Amino acid sequence: MTYCLAIRVDDGLVFASDSRTHAGVDYASVYSKMHRFELHNDRHIVLLGAGSLASTQAVVNFIRRDLENPGALCSLNSVSYLFDAATYVGEVSVRVQEQHWPSMQRSGFSAEASFILGGQIQGQPHEIYLIYPQGNYITASVETPYLQIGETKYGKPILDRMAAPGTSLEDAARCALVSLDSTMRSNISVGPPLEIEIYRQDSFATSHYLSLDTSSPFYSALKSQWSEGIRNAFSMLPRFDWE
Amino acid sequence: MTYCLAIRVDDGLVFASDSRTHAGVDYASVYSKMHRFELHNDRHIVLLGAGSLASTQAVVNFIRRDLENPGALCSLNSVSYLFDAATYVGEVSVRVQEQHWPSMQRSGFSAEASFILGGQIQGQPHEIYLIYPQGNYITASVETPYLQIGETKYGKPILDRMAAPGTSLEDAARCALVSLDSTMRSNISVGPPLEIEIYRQDSFATSHYLSLDTSSPFYSALKSQWSEGIRNAFSMLPRFDWE
Repeated sequence: MTYCLAIRVDDGLVFASDSRTHAGVDYASVYSKMHRFELHNDRHIVLLGAGSLASTQAVVNFIRRDLENPGALCSLNSVSYLFDAATYVGEVSVRVQEQHWPSMQRSGFSAEASFILGGQIQGQPHEIYLIYPQGNYITASVETPYLQIGETKYGKPILDRMAAPGTSLEDAARCALVSLDSTMRSNISVGPPLEIEIYRQDSFATSHYLSLDTSSPFYSALKSQWSEGIRNAFSMLPRFDWE
Repeated sequence: MTYCLAIRVDDGLVFASDSRTHAGVDYASVYSKMHRFELHNDRHIVLLGAGSLASTQAVVNFIRRDLENPGALCSLNSVSYLFDAATYVGEVSVRVQEQHWPSMQRSGFSAEASFILGGQIQGQPHEIYLIYPQGNYITASVETPYLQIGETKYGKPILDRMAAPGTSLEDAARCALVSLDSTMRSNISVGPPLEIEIYRQDSFATSHYLSLDTSSPFYSALKSQWSEGIRNAFSMLPRFDWE
């Protein structure tokens, strides 16, 4: 399994992902699911991938090949709008999945992959897109300023409570980390290290990037502070009539 | 959808359930999913049901018929152990599902139902069981002192953090309500009123029963206190190096 998310706030974007993959419970590995690209100075794009590792790796390989090939019909450097980039990644993804679909289906496996693509192209707003396995996509809204792929449920309540357009980038990053932490506690197929990238709008470059293992001081402090905070919140809940 | 849960603590049991059922998104109704029975004075048993409403209703009807029929081969009054009660409910459930399986399958629907059964029979400990659609069942453990059916994921993180054998019955009840509240925020097919029953061990009777609508003062206070507590907890999280 996998859990990746992106939050869009007024000041910019936050991307976060776990790093655990597995082929059955008896073969778990560590792979980064956050893909960052060397692009022209007028753009910054990050891609998070979930689903079949073979599919997500192939998609990233095709994207990188198109970037290096001046004759490519389309690439992350040639698109003019971020939704063009989403269309392009969706098309690459569908092509990759179709290539292996018959053999995967015979073996009872799924070649499906889904992605979150986010970033900014100069002159346009910063945006995030969720690209479905079918190649179509949605963006976030003011009311729901985040997108998730993979194991989305355990970490959703904190996003619904805390993620809003006015949230600072750092608070959005903390929110993403709490969301990942809640998911890791409940689903062992989501695991560290946690990667987090913060993108400040109009910077066209990574503002901050962190890879946090469970032993990293910041993540340890965040985990224990959050546990204590939840316990405090719980202790303040109203008493029943008979107490 | 449905969300029901039970927590077993040293002092007794807490049962909690939502009340929303739906046949498609265009037909939502309110049905209690918490079934309490008039039993002999040496026992107290509560049943929570999820899945096909036709199946769960039929199972409860058969259980009630067996209780009224002195010639019944088995009933909640005749079993000597709570796991016998779980076996019995599992058998009734499988029978009910099998009866309608072919016609349900032809229409593309599922007749599956799952249950949480909990309570106490005199001379034995208080227990909770999760009865799968296949009729087999598991009980809770010291490490995982709760069971859930239906939409289980959104409400699991708070249970993992707060539910423990030493938790008071009232704290376990608050924990169940927070778990239900988080689920309702994220899944509109889980809805009020929320029912909650507290059973104190060796009492063989309901200690407290509440049906809480969103407008009820206690539930409103709990919701707003929890929101405020989460915000406070969030504001105490550690800052990044660059802040």
